[in-house]
Amino acid sequence: MKQELDLRLYLVTEESCLQHGVTLMDAVEKALQAGVTLVQYREKGGAGGMMFEKAKALTELCHRYHVPLLVDDRLDVALAAGADGVHLGQDDLPCAAARRIAGPDFLIGVSAHNAEEAARAEADGADYLGCGAVFPTQTKKGVKPTGINHLRSIRAAVRIPFVGIGGIQPEHYKAIRATGADGVAVVTAILGADDIAAATEKFVKQF
Amino acid sequence: MKQELDLRLYLVTEESCLQHGVTLMDAVEKALQAGVTLVQYREKGGAGGMMFEKAKALTELCHRYHVPLLVDDRLDVALAAGADGVHLGQDDLPCAAARRIAGPDFLIGVSAHNAEEAARAEADGADYLGCGAVFPTQTKKGVKPTGINHLRSIRAAVRIPFVGIGGIQPEHYKAIRATGADGVAVVTAILGADDIAAATEKFVKQF
Repeated sequence: MKQELDLRLYLVTEESCLQHGVTLMDAVEKALQAGVTLVQYREKGGAGGMMFEKAKALTELCHRYHVPLLVDDRLDVALAAGADGVHLGQDDLPCAAARRIAGPDFLIGVSAHNAEEAARAEADGADYLGCGAVFPTQTKKGVKPTGINHLRSIRAAVRIPFVGIGGIQPEHYKAIRATGADGVAVVTAILGADDIAAATEKFVKQF
Repeated sequence: MKQELDLRLYLVTEESCLQHGVTLMDAVEKALQAGVTLVQYREKGGAGGMMFEKAKALTELCHRYHVPLLVDDRLDVALAAGADGVHLGQDDLPCAAARRIAGPDFLIGVSAHNAEEAARAEADGADYLGCGAVFPTQTKKGVKPTGINHLRSIRAAVRIPFVGIGGIQPEHYKAIRATGADGVAVVTAILGADDIAAATEKFVKQF
């Protein structure tokens, strides 16, 4: 059966954000303890074997907190590692092709930058959308931010849930939810913090 | 049912080898017409969506010549594109994990650099091995070549078929087969040639 999706606070990993000496596993566990509701393992261009080992370890960790683990881009890594789903960018495998391989119960998220991409992903069987970049972000440099109001056009275009992503801070949380978004995806504001638990809690307090 | 493997002349793609103005599809078709027996689509670090489209097109092309098409590294792309198999390096998804996802009839090849890696790949369910680099090669710079005799240690270690790869020219063909290897994998000596058909035929004459 498909995992239930709770998109309120979606942590996306990026090891280069971590403070010196902090391991990815420790950082993600602190964020899980403090209340993130979904985790995506993202490692652009990582070797499949290394990603498989990390995805297995993160899946096991997340499952101890009853939180699903998705893998960015690499559907094969996600399936091999026993992860709960995959997140696909517009340049990755098409959602419909991924759905054919992965079956109906596998979680599939798609990055959508506008209402057209959002509607197509929904038609292709996506379970949720990641929409942005809402604000300027360290992890996707050179991307023109859309601002919060753009999310209303996504909400108008689809029925599936979606999150805003890109430079989102706790003080933006309520305004983003007010557009109809189901939550936020966060990288740097949590993983780059000196105190990962405290940074996570600042978001959780906004729920 | 699993495709029959004919490893006598295994073409591995590398677009950067192609002469100016030659498309990958045209190059591969010329090589198919001239007698390559297996094709691997390799594009290190390519985006999944682009690789999916190319793998679909190459699969269709190869099937017109009754030749299987394998995809390097990306099992998800291979499955989504309807390719016949995947080729895994030592840094890619583990063979046993790939086999669990892909099922018994999917072709899985593994790169093995020594007898130990070869035996492990066989135990993990590989259908064939790619062994090298036999000679210095443009496509894997900085790799120490093993020479032809090294292939005898692979033959002694496994029962599954294998090919030599790395800088192989037609004049090496018979010596490589004499080690017990089932064929050769070729990149530059075919795809980098001015006349791809003629370059392929030089190998085919050695069968």
